[in-house]
Amino acid sequence: MNGAESLLSTLVNNEIEVCFTNPGTSEMHFVAALDEVDGMRCVLCLFEGVLSGAADGYARMARKPASTLLHLGPGLGNALANLHNAGKGHVPVVNIVGDHASYHLQYNAPLTSDITAIAGAVSDWTHTANSSAEIASDAAEAVRQAGFGSVATLILPADVSWGDNPNGAVAKVAIEPPTAVAEALIEDAVSRLQSGANCMLMIGGREIDKSRGLLINQIAKATGARVCSDVFPTRVARGAGTAVIERLPYLAELAIDHLKDIQQLILIGAAAPVSFFAYPGVPSAIAPDACEQLQLATPDNDIDRLLAEIARRVGAIDIEPEVYPLQLPPAPVGALDVNSAAQALAYYLPEEAVVVDESITAGMAIFPQTMKARAHDWLHLSGGSIGWGLPASVGAAIACPRRKVICLEGDGSAMYTIQALWTMAREDLDVLVIIFNNRKYSVLEMEFARTGARGGSPGVKAASTLGIGSPDMDFVALATGMGVSAERADSAEAFCALLEQAMSERGPRLIDAIVPSLF
Amino acid sequence: MNGAESLLSTLVNNEIEVCFTNPGTSEMHFVAALDEVDGMRCVLCLFEGVLSGAADGYARMARKPASTLLHLGPGLGNALANLHNAGKGHVPVVNIVGDHASYHLQYNAPLTSDITAIAGAVSDWTHTANSSAEIASDAAEAVRQAGFGSVATLILPADVSWGDNPNGAVAKVAIEPPTAVAEALIEDAVSRLQSGANCMLMIGGREIDKSRGLLINQIAKATGARVCSDVFPTRVARGAGTAVIERLPYLAELAIDHLKDIQQLILIGAAAPVSFFAYPGVPSAIAPDACEQLQLATPDNDIDRLLAEIARRVGAIDIEPEVYPLQLPPAPVGALDVNSAAQALAYYLPEEAVVVDESITAGMAIFPQTMKARAHDWLHLSGGSIGWGLPASVGAAIACPRRKVICLEGDGSAMYTIQALWTMAREDLDVLVIIFNNRKYSVLEMEFARTGARGGSPGVKAASTLGIGSPDMDFVALATGMGVSAERADSAEAFCALLEQAMSERGPRLIDAIVPSLF
Repeated sequence: MNGAESLLSTLVNNEIEVCFTNPGTSEMHFVAALDEVDGMRCVLCLFEGVLSGAADGYARMARKPASTLLHLGPGLGNALANLHNAGKGHVPVVNIVGDHASYHLQYNAPLTSDITAIAGAVSDWTHTANSSAEIASDAAEAVRQAGFGSVATLILPADVSWGDNPNGAVAKVAIEPPTAVAEALIEDAVSRLQSGANCMLMIGGREIDKSRGLLINQIAKATGARVCSDVFPTRVARGAGTAVIERLPYLAELAIDHLKDIQQLILIGAAAPVSFFAYPGVPSAIAPDACEQLQLATPDNDIDRLLAEIARRVGAIDIEPEVYPLQLPPAPVGALDVNSAAQALAYYLPEEAVVVDESITAGMAIFPQTMKARAHDWLHLSGGSIGWGLPASVGAAIACPRRKVICLEGDGSAMYTIQALWTMAREDLDVLVIIFNNRKYSVLEMEFARTGARGGSPGVKAASTLGIGSPDMDFVALATGMGVSAERADSAEAFCALLEQAMSERGPRLIDAIVPSLF
Repeated sequence: MNGAESLLSTLVNNEIEVCFTNPGTSEMHFVAALDEVDGMRCVLCLFEGVLSGAADGYARMARKPASTLLHLGPGLGNALANLHNAGKGHVPVVNIVGDHASYHLQYNAPLTSDITAIAGAVSDWTHTANSSAEIASDAAEAVRQAGFGSVATLILPADVSWGDNPNGAVAKVAIEPPTAVAEALIEDAVSRLQSGANCMLMIGGREIDKSRGLLINQIAKATGARVCSDVFPTRVARGAGTAVIERLPYLAELAIDHLKDIQQLILIGAAAPVSFFAYPGVPSAIAPDACEQLQLATPDNDIDRLLAEIARRVGAIDIEPEVYPLQLPPAPVGALDVNSAAQALAYYLPEEAVVVDESITAGMAIFPQTMKARAHDWLHLSGGSIGWGLPASVGAAIACPRRKVICLEGDGSAMYTIQALWTMAREDLDVLVIIFNNRKYSVLEMEFARTGARGGSPGVKAASTLGIGSPDMDFVALATGMGVSAERADSAEAFCALLEQAMSERGPRLIDAIVPSLF
């Protein structure tokens, strides 16, 4: 077999079953190999930012990596923003980046670039394949590296792809299990929890699933601690039957207030809380100066075992956790705004829905109002780089074909990777996209004020960079232009009718929800 | 004034008058400064790949740089592909990339990334501003560096932006003139040209304007040399009254044949000719082994003076150059395909049009058929990274508001940066976009065969990554969804009627030209 075939076989042997692709000439042997090697689903995306976001969404829901196929440095550049998000969310991805044949690089052809430098900025592991004979073991190592919750990037020169590999593929490699938290740290944590101090357990990492949520809630009840999640946890189980867990506010001012009485902060998969951005006069670190922080677990640790162990030691096993009841609001009537939209979503959200949230300001209202909806998973924008929601929805829908994916999107953020709609149509994915169309970068209006620039009040030119009306985007036209059926809603009743219809059928749909800006 | 204001004033003092922007929170003080400092036109783009391509197109036509405003590492990543194109085309760009406040970086907030590494991969010069007091001189240096035909990237921490700058702005800096070619090289070139060997002058660099074309043609006539341009020259004057100049074919097989008899190849602004990609069994270097090559001038040299000097020495000054006559084909009738479309374009192309060509396979027919059209400028995809044409058209139209910009776009390449249409509508730019909609990555079908993968014949999965029908993109819907009026053409007559209308009115328009694939 040639190098591309042994690479592909190795990926398939390691249960990597989906490749999000946007190939070019240097990847044609890899593309050809898709027909020679069984077991890889190939999903074409029209822009690389779509495929990297799709790989992120897929891995969050499948709990294993997808592969991506990228064309040279510029293709990787286009994928960079969503690889950044995957990296910050500790989400595994295996990137295959084609390069010129190794002997061709010296000629500095137009598409020659420093792929290693670009890859290094968004990968936990980067390697350039040197020979067809070793490409399978390189691929196996990429899979193993991704297994740490990492972005692993393998650069594949075209001649390595087309050259003969007498060694064939590599069988399944061992993925290292998450490491146990050291006994001393566990003892330290238990002693802090039982010290009588105001304690908070802050949980983040790759996932806060239902069982982790229940366990940490039990620990909190047993010890009197509070429980809080990261601002933007990668994946969190929510809704009826899930544990009551606070969420750290996005706004530094509110987050500081949230933590002001905490004396002991115990971090489980989460990083020390910091302000998302810097603002004049606002501290970067959120916790009070006097608060002691313990990094009890990283995202790579065995958090399930850790929580079970702490629960045992603090006597929390038999404590009844506090969970959200199923409590649906009435379907809203009247004006459509983010509050009535939130109410409608809470009402219609189906069991086991996957909510992909890049609704930015609209999400500030929707997240708290859906806590008592039917049980669902919620994916957040972990790295802050927008243009993630539509692509991540593509990946989540491919990972979970029997669950309804609901993508909450801002109009501004939608436009970074709007091409994702085409892949939704092509693959007939069960995604409902809701665009919160307020004709503004609404969050930037808020941020402008928060930075205090020009006394917090934008002038004419500044305002023109914050508003994206004139012309108004028509998302119904954009969606139908890419094969996704779409309708506009400008009242709560219309919005509810479209939600009801979307929940009763499968397949891609878009609602262009015309809402006033929060600011 | 604060750092942002002194930075902006310095740019304006240096005749940088346009800023293509997509800001975020860390750039709010720069955005605020737009209203405090006169003279900067701010053009909002909905995606960073649009603004970097717009900066490229602007600089090619304005012959001076624009600035860009980018949000952190992911924003720069989104801009990377078109910065790659600008860099390969020796096109000047001044990037301002916002970063977190310098003191905030240690906290590793979600949007923290290695901006320097990303910038380094696509910039000739990268610098991180260290203080508000020095930001103006940093900006002046960025402008000076861009003056070498470079991509200059200045990373602007938020605290440098909002901090006070007692030093104010920097006045106009001296841009270094292009360096003269060494006398020894000129003598060498003249001696080769007069040696009786089969000579070719190959010209590339930043621009092949009318006067350079005429001069090099005169030199060729005087010496018996052939004249050829790069495969993808950055900007070239064409049409009636411009010099007859060959163009190196894209296909290595054809390019090798094109150069097979050349004994002396003299490179003026062009690089040694190489295959765009590597293919099994095809050499990377295009010129015959026995051909001697002289790198007479780089793009940074004074090519005007060089050509005048050589013309004088070889006695070419009084030789009548061979120029293209004005010779228009009849308007085509019948089926619409790339040949009839080319004929229609030759017929309707207005005087002084700017043609931005990312039509990929369609362009193979259009370029040769428009040589005898009315005089126009032609911009090529210099770096091979697609998603450039629509953005570059935005920039070209802003640089040349009284010239009609005609963007020739493939359907596949259009979808990488389709958001550019919105900026065309918002700024009411006089751009006619023609989408050659063949429902395929047609060039990749050709490239698949050329690489010899799977015997040159794609299987089912491979074919699915080369075809972008199902669903078919409706570019009329996409354009109207972003405020650009659009119509579909599926016959030569309909295409001609739409061209005629477009040439008689100003403002953005799109024609969705349904054409069969060449392959």
